[in-house]
Amino acid sequence: MEMMNQKIVLAQRPKGAPKAEDFKLVEETVPELKDGEILLKTLSFSLDPYMRARMGEGDLEGPSFKLNEVLTGAAVCEVVETKDPLFKVGDKLLTGSGWQKFVVLKADLLAQGFPELDDELGVIKLSPDAKPSHYLGALGMPGYTAFHGLNIIGEPKERETVVITAATGAVGSIAGQLAKLKGCRVVGIAGGETKCKYAVATLGFDACVDHKSKSFAKDLATACPKGIDIYVENVGGPIFWTAFNLFNEHARVPIIGGIVWYNDAGTLLEPGFKFGGIFRKIGAAFRLFFHIDRSPLLFLLSIGKRLKLQGMVVTDDMSRYDQFVADSIPLIKAGKIVVKEDVVKGIENAPTAFIGLLQGKNFGKLVIEI
Amino acid sequence: MEMMNQKIVLAQRPKGAPKAEDFKLVEETVPELKDGEILLKTLSFSLDPYMRARMGEGDLEGPSFKLNEVLTGAAVCEVVETKDPLFKVGDKLLTGSGWQKFVVLKADLLAQGFPELDDELGVIKLSPDAKPSHYLGALGMPGYTAFHGLNIIGEPKERETVVITAATGAVGSIAGQLAKLKGCRVVGIAGGETKCKYAVATLGFDACVDHKSKSFAKDLATACPKGIDIYVENVGGPIFWTAFNLFNEHARVPIIGGIVWYNDAGTLLEPGFKFGGIFRKIGAAFRLFFHIDRSPLLFLLSIGKRLKLQGMVVTDDMSRYDQFVADSIPLIKAGKIVVKEDVVKGIENAPTAFIGLLQGKNFGKLVIEI
Repeated sequence: MEMMNQKIVLAQRPKGAPKAEDFKLVEETVPELKDGEILLKTLSFSLDPYMRARMGEGDLEGPSFKLNEVLTGAAVCEVVETKDPLFKVGDKLLTGSGWQKFVVLKADLLAQGFPELDDELGVIKLSPDAKPSHYLGALGMPGYTAFHGLNIIGEPKERETVVITAATGAVGSIAGQLAKLKGCRVVGIAGGETKCKYAVATLGFDACVDHKSKSFAKDLATACPKGIDIYVENVGGPIFWTAFNLFNEHARVPIIGGIVWYNDAGTLLEPGFKFGGIFRKIGAAFRLFFHIDRSPLLFLLSIGKRLKLQGMVVTDDMSRYDQFVADSIPLIKAGKIVVKEDVVKGIENAPTAFIGLLQGKNFGKLVIEI
Repeated sequence: MEMMNQKIVLAQRPKGAPKAEDFKLVEETVPELKDGEILLKTLSFSLDPYMRARMGEGDLEGPSFKLNEVLTGAAVCEVVETKDPLFKVGDKLLTGSGWQKFVVLKADLLAQGFPELDDELGVIKLSPDAKPSHYLGALGMPGYTAFHGLNIIGEPKERETVVITAATGAVGSIAGQLAKLKGCRVVGIAGGETKCKYAVATLGFDACVDHKSKSFAKDLATACPKGIDIYVENVGGPIFWTAFNLFNEHARVPIIGGIVWYNDAGTLLEPGFKFGGIFRKIGAAFRLFFHIDRSPLLFLLSIGKRLKLQGMVVTDDMSRYDQFVADSIPLIKAGKIVVKEDVVKGIENAPTAFIGLLQGKNFGKLVIEI
């Protein structure tokens, strides 16, 4: 019987903020299985901000996506047919097959790294104790990123103040809850009152400050009466500089993301000098670089403050991943780590959901359910 | 017999670059010794760029110097009279007594930190195997700063490329030679051909690039064919951004100093809105901040490049200091670490020498010999 796959491809590279016409839903026949292959049906797939960086030219956060090919990314799938003795029908896997309904893989069991970043053919077998879609967030790349940034770079100590940007997002919500479990004072930064209330009431943060509020700088200072020891950076831009004033000596800044810059950085990396393009590039350059240059301040105060800023890519060190999953599953079951998913149904709604993600419209880990 | 002390005091806070009239030579009677006190005669004292930061208001790199009081700093002294059984006449000590000929101290043997930074009364007893003035440079705060920045933050591995800014300075010359001993490729950055030649011919660096040359960016790239793994930052400003393009993944940047910014930062920290002052402040702010803001680049590329930037103050961790001195003395004796001192004779010449230091006119560790 002929099966049809549906997939979303990158129709053109977004110019600035992505638009609906940058994406295209394509149908195709699912090929017959050959020996050693498995057929996977996608249960749900992940939309993550880093994907915007990969939609541009240049390899900003991983290799650039190819035009007219499926957008890859984390997906949890079920084996529906198998010609590989390592897998049986019904096995649930995390892989990097991304924005599509079916995929045929000659699967390698994952050696290192997350499949969506390092090896689209690699798979991670899911624990039967976990909700599969959690592997797109709390138990997957975003969760382990939070773990690594907070614990390995941040090195939190009891009673330190930890500030979490994008506090209710996939990385931030886990980083903050892990910091609470370490006995830290946790202060979130999020956009809007709803998210801030959620961070405190549901995620258990000690405080959460709305960066859209006019009193943001004052509110953040009030929420951090003992200054900031760890600043988990997912966002970039002016929010960082507001927090910077509150950094304590020996503050640590794991740099995980810079969502406010992705669109403009992507624009700048577009090749050539096409008609019209130059004006968009000038605009992007303006927004990115035509600010007061605070880097002298950053360097000078880094000395007296013994500041540590460190960028990371989580797949560099997967050695603690299995233990992280084993530790996290009971914490999630016990409600000590709350996982919020923003579930959008239907592959056809992925582009709109992704556009909204970059505008902060999601609330929780954004997941497309098929 | 009445003895006269000569000392240099801060007559007024420098406005921008220090001038001769910011300093004053003062004479005073040396007081009689009381029980528990010692009288020290200064053999030589140190001039260091960080002192400029402390001449302004605000505690940029240590507490602000007080007006009309002696400028403190590292000095090697000899005990000439003692009423403390711990010390005998002829003992040689490193202390924080600074720009003066004699000082009476109720000395504490140093518990932690360098006396010039943490405790003016603290003293370090000098090894009889070492040249005393080396404790102002290679064996003192600058040398241990180089050791700490290179080894503890930088973590050099064999065959990595280490770039040393202010390559022939007190910190840079030691950092580079220590990196050579670790089997690294060492590339210096210095101002002018003479210093560059010295870095290669005498200090044994693999290459040294003149940042005043028009071909600086190209020269640096040529000197670092495998990119940069460690960048020892003493300087700041545009030189950093030139090197930044060459940073490898997992590059480490110990931030030790930012000499190009000290004058302007000092100006900005002057209090109040005195007549005339506002224009100088605007000028300083312009030079410091009115550049293209490359911080988005720094943050975004930090992620993909897994960059680590870390500020440090060396006295935070003195635990390796005694071992560092014990290891360094034989290396210096064997000529494996070359120490170059720029010796200026006479306390009255200290202000001019200090002004020149901030303009890069010294060549080697600047020391005033009395």
